[in-house]
Amino acid sequence: MVPDLDFLDELADAAAAETLPRFRIGGTISNKLANGFDPVTEADRAAEAAIRARIAARFPDHGILGEEHGLENADSAFRWVIDPIDGTRAFIAGLPVWGTLIGLYHEGRAVMGLMDQPFTGERFVAGTEGAFFARHGGARQPMRSRQGVELSAAILMTTAPSLFSAKERPAFAALEGAVQLSRFGCDCYAFAMVAAGHVDICIEAGLQPYDIAGLIAPIERAGGVVTDWDGNRPEQGGNIIACGSAELHAAALAQMRSAGG
Amino acid sequence: MVPDLDFLDELADAAAAETLPRFRIGGTISNKLANGFDPVTEADRAAEAAIRARIAARFPDHGILGEEHGLENADSAFRWVIDPIDGTRAFIAGLPVWGTLIGLYHEGRAVMGLMDQPFTGERFVAGTEGAFFARHGGARQPMRSRQGVELSAAILMTTAPSLFSAKERPAFAALEGAVQLSRFGCDCYAFAMVAAGHVDICIEAGLQPYDIAGLIAPIERAGGVVTDWDGNRPEQGGNIIACGSAELHAAALAQMRSAGG
Repeated sequence: MVPDLDFLDELADAAAAETLPRFRIGGTISNKLANGFDPVTEADRAAEAAIRARIAARFPDHGILGEEHGLENADSAFRWVIDPIDGTRAFIAGLPVWGTLIGLYHEGRAVMGLMDQPFTGERFVAGTEGAFFARHGGARQPMRSRQGVELSAAILMTTAPSLFSAKERPAFAALEGAVQLSRFGCDCYAFAMVAAGHVDICIEAGLQPYDIAGLIAPIERAGGVVTDWDGNRPEQGGNIIACGSAELHAAALAQMRSAGG
Repeated sequence: MVPDLDFLDELADAAAAETLPRFRIGGTISNKLANGFDPVTEADRAAEAAIRARIAARFPDHGILGEEHGLENADSAFRWVIDPIDGTRAFIAGLPVWGTLIGLYHEGRAVMGLMDQPFTGERFVAGTEGAFFARHGGARQPMRSRQGVELSAAILMTTAPSLFSAKERPAFAALEGAVQLSRFGCDCYAFAMVAAGHVDICIEAGLQPYDIAGLIAPIERAGGVVTDWDGNRPEQGGNIIACGSAELHAAALAQMRSAGG
């Protein structure tokens, strides 16, 4: 039994009810912050608990892996993989580029996924029906990644160059040197921009499964490709690259290999 | 004759009418992009022209300095300093962290300013009435920067470490090493977060006057301090640091000087 996109909406709404009221309250609570009060961790835990409760009620035999509360029903063919707040630094700094990530794996492969940014009201979602973008609860619009972009014309994003180890840096540098424009910051938001056709390449290193799970189906169903740096499936995280098209993905991997990456 | 905040709103609305319809259209126009069509430059020029037209109609003797169309009425005691789209890379990549910056200088000193982000509907504005935040055209709420934060607890932002020259890097590194959390990206949005009390320090190098003009009054009237790296007035741009409080600003400058910066 595979859920529909309305169920993903329900999960995202439940998470937003926990995250958004805790976003940008730092300015008024600096004294409490100094005393160990941590609104991000609170929002993270409460949002994951809200998501888990709804999954458990509707699909009690499904597995669930979350950043905050670990793994349940490890033997199920279905596994939900959750990051209630991806981009906690953005969340802390008041920047609206964090997101709630929810993916569903079937026998280890992503079949549905969602990235939700409740402050901007943006939702990037995909299932067997296709990939869609919706804003402020409006109707879902079909979402397509950008096709036909050569490597030399591509827009690349990554969170921070310091993420890459000395061993990884040459491959990243080769890729950065080959594209038209590169930009830092934005975590999951950058992957969502690949799915939505605004960014051509997003590259990261050392991701956990929950950092990418919710984004795989939106990118793939929108026409993009997301793998590890060797071209293997991305469901287990690690070093990940997403591209708007298969041709660009092949060119990017070749460019990285040229640096011995 | 100094304008009121409603006039700043009018200018921001006129700019948004030119920028927002050209934001995120890259996905549908990649062929045109390859043929030299440049929606960012078009949006930049059209927005600055719209702002200039309204200033000229209402304050025909005021000076205007803009990124796209140069300097008019150079001898006026009043000078508007405009960046229609600060953060063009963010604009190109579909990220909602670019902004329209409009500042008014009187005898060389910032007296009013505005940062507008039309996609998120956020407006950060200040004049003699004080500093305010408004969203989606709603009522202005008083805006305060964060006070009482020690350097070791501060959140720091900068656009990209590659912005700093070899000579500037030690001072930046000394500062980055002293704070709790640092994050890249976001251009003018990071300065707005200092004014709004979510980020404690924003530091940049090599700014033009129009990169900072619109942000000076919002930061100062909200309770923050913005200067060059030597503590001098920021109106002419250059290497700029903004902090949420005077105490934090003094500590940050001392830390940078400790590196010989």
